[in-house]
Parts: sequence; C-alpha cells; structure tokens
Amino acid sequence: MTIRRYTVSGMTCEHCVGAVRSEVEKISGVDSVAVELADGRLTVTGDGYADEQIRDAVYEAGYALVEV
Amino acid sequence: MTIRRYTVSGMTCEHCVGAVRSEVEKISGVDSVAVELADGRLTVTGDGYADEQIRDAVYEAGYALVEV
Repeated sequence: MTIRRYTVSGMTCEHCVGAVRSEVEKISGVDSVAVELADGRLTVTGDGYADEQIRDAVYEAGYALVEV
Repeated sequence: MTIRRYTVSGMTCEHCVGAVRSEVEKISGVDSVAVELADGRLTVTGDGYADEQIRDAVYEAGYALVEV
C-alpha cells in the first residue's frame, strides 16, 4: 500500500472537500482518501492507480491539482 | 405571491449556494428560491411562511442571515 500526496487548489469549504474526496474515492485501486481544506492537501492510500486519474478526478469535482 | 429578500453570510462556493437553496425550498409556502453567491442575496417567492423559518433554514444549511 502506497501513500501519495497531492495539493488541490480552489477548495473553499467542506462541501468542496467532500466533492474532491467523493470523486477520488471512485478510482479503482484507491483505498482511502484524506483531504485538508486549510492547505489543500490530498493524501491518497492505495495501489494500481495513476496520477493522471487523480488529476482527472479532482478536475471532475471542479478543482485542480497544483503541479509540482 | 410575495417576494422577500434576505442576505446570507458565509457562502464561499456554489455548493454553499445549493445547500442554502435546498433548505429554504423545504419550507412550506415557499414557491421559489434564488441565491446569489457574489453578494449573498437570497430571494424567496411565496406566502404563508415566517422570516424565522428562513433564518432557521439558512442556519440549518450552515450559514447565517445578515440582520438588517
């Protein structure tokens, strides 16, 4: 099980946090998801998914990953 | 049919707008609800409801009416 961290921009409230979490949780291979509103940190635990899927899920929720 | 206007504080995104609209729409006598994110304006069309019910519904959604 691998933990990866991302940063999401544009979230303003806990509804936004829930929308991001909900979309990322749908990805096959993702085991658990934590989202922090204060700093935009998205922590994903799982295996067998690609960063592009995370990016697309965040976009689907209405937000964007901060590219690092 | 009467139109009344209120101002809601604390909404930061369209999810917030939807949460307020959803709660206010539940009030008996409310016919239609419009919520503007930019200025917090809540416009309610209907009859037979009380301002206190609007205030309570907005609070239930997680926000507050600006008292005028």
